[in-house]
Amino acid sequence: MGPDILDLLRRHVSVREYAPGDVPQEEWLQWIRAAQQASTDATGQLYSAIEVRDPDLRRRVAVLAGDQRHVHQAPRFLVVCLDVRRLRLLLEHRHERLGIRRGAALLFGITDAALFAQGLVVAAEAAGFGVCFVGGVQNHGPKLARELQLPEGVVPLWGLTFGRPAKPASPKPRVPTSSVLHVDQYHDLTDQELGDTFTVMAPATRSGDWVNPLRKYFAPAGVMDLREEDIWALLEQQGLGPGK
Amino acid sequence: MGPDILDLLRRHVSVREYAPGDVPQEEWLQWIRAAQQASTDATGQLYSAIEVRDPDLRRRVAVLAGDQRHVHQAPRFLVVCLDVRRLRLLLEHRHERLGIRRGAALLFGITDAALFAQGLVVAAEAAGFGVCFVGGVQNHGPKLARELQLPEGVVPLWGLTFGRPAKPASPKPRVPTSSVLHVDQYHDLTDQELGDTFTVMAPATRSGDWVNPLRKYFAPAGVMDLREEDIWALLEQQGLGPGK
Repeated sequence: MGPDILDLLRRHVSVREYAPGDVPQEEWLQWIRAAQQASTDATGQLYSAIEVRDPDLRRRVAVLAGDQRHVHQAPRFLVVCLDVRRLRLLLEHRHERLGIRRGAALLFGITDAALFAQGLVVAAEAAGFGVCFVGGVQNHGPKLARELQLPEGVVPLWGLTFGRPAKPASPKPRVPTSSVLHVDQYHDLTDQELGDTFTVMAPATRSGDWVNPLRKYFAPAGVMDLREEDIWALLEQQGLGPGK
Repeated sequence: MGPDILDLLRRHVSVREYAPGDVPQEEWLQWIRAAQQASTDATGQLYSAIEVRDPDLRRRVAVLAGDQRHVHQAPRFLVVCLDVRRLRLLLEHRHERLGIRRGAALLFGITDAALFAQGLVVAAEAAGFGVCFVGGVQNHGPKLARELQLPEGVVPLWGLTFGRPAKPASPKPRVPTSSVLHVDQYHDLTDQELGDTFTVMAPATRSGDWVNPLRKYFAPAGVMDLREEDIWALLEQQGLGPGK
C-alpha cells in the first residue's frame, strides 16, 4: 500500500476543470468522516465545513471569492471554517465557559481545519476526483461570512472544489526538499540556491519566471497584502477580535 | 486503491509509544518530498521543518514542549514552522520585497504547514509508522524558538514525532459528521445533540467524561488560554509583530 499512497501524494495537482459527474452522496460522507479522523489538539476539532449547494448562494459566494469559473461550476464546493462555536456550546451545555482566545484559536483552529482538509483531498484523489483550494475566500472575507450567515465563532478560511478532472495534468514543481527540511538549525539558502530555486520553479508559472506570481501575491500591495485588513475585520466580525 | 486509503485515514491514531527502529533516511526524504506536493496558495510554500537530531538539543526542546516521554524518545522529531523568510530571500534575490503581513502569514502559512504535515502523516502511516502531533511546542514558544535559533520570519507551530508503533491501538471517536458538515447554512447543535456528542466522545477520554479534557484545554485559565500571551510574544519575537 505504501508506494501507492506516496505516488498519490506525489501526483497531486490542483484541478480547475471538471468533467460531468457529481460525487455520490454516500461516498462524499465517507470522505468527510475519514478526514475527520485527522489529529486535533486536545480532541477540540475546531473546524466546520459549509457545503454550498443552493445555486444562488453558490453564485454569490463564487463572485466574492474571485469569480473563478471552477468555483461556479464544480459539482461540490465547501467553505472550510475555523469553528470555536461548537466547542463553546458544548462547554456551556455542561455549565463551563469557553476560554480559548484568538491567537490560540487561529493557530490550533487553522491547523485542525487544514489537517481535516488534506485528508479530504487525499480521500477524493484516491477515488479519482480532483480538488482545488480557493484562497479567494479571503478576498472579501467579511462579506462572504455575512453571505453565508456564519454566526460568531465561525471564520471562513478557504474553499475547496471537487469534481472529476476534465483532463490529465502533470504535478507542478516544488522548492527543493533541502530548503524545506533543516537539521538542528535553520539554514538560509545561498545566492546560488536562490537562483536555482527560480529555475526549478519556473515550470509552475505561465510566464516561465516564478518571480511573477511571487510578486503578484507576496510583494507590497500584492494579493496577500491587500487581504490583510479584511482578515482582521473578518476575525473581529466573527467574534475573534483583540479582546477575545 | 480508494478503499485502502479511506481505511488508512479512518484508522489514524496518535502514537506515543514506539518500538525500536528508525525511519530509513531515503524513505524519510521520500515522505517529505511527497508531502511537499500538497496545495499551497500562489506556490508560496510558507513552511519549513526543523528535524531535531542532536540529543542535547532534543532534550532541551522536549522539556520546553511539555517534557513528554515520546518527544524525548521518538526515532524522529520535527518542529514544523511557518516560514516567510525563505520567500523574503527569494523576493530579495530578484530585487523585490516581501509584503505579506501577519494576518495573511498566519492564515496561509499555518494552512501550508498543516497541509504538508498531514501528507507526511499519511505517508508515514502508509509505511507502517505512527506519528503524534506535539501542540506543547506552544507552551513556551518564545524560548523554544530561541533554543532552535530560529531566525526572523520563522515561527514554530507544533512538533511531530515518528516511530514504529509499540502496540496496536484503536481510533478515537470524533464528533458526528452531521455537526461538522453544514449545507448552505450553519446549524447549531440542539441540546439533545450536544448531550449525545458527549456520549459519543466519552471513549476519547481516560475519565469517561469528555468535559474533562475540554475544560482542561479550552475553558478560561485552561491550557489554550495560558498559551495565548506566549503566542503573540512568539510572533513578535520572530518578526511577525503588529506592524508587520
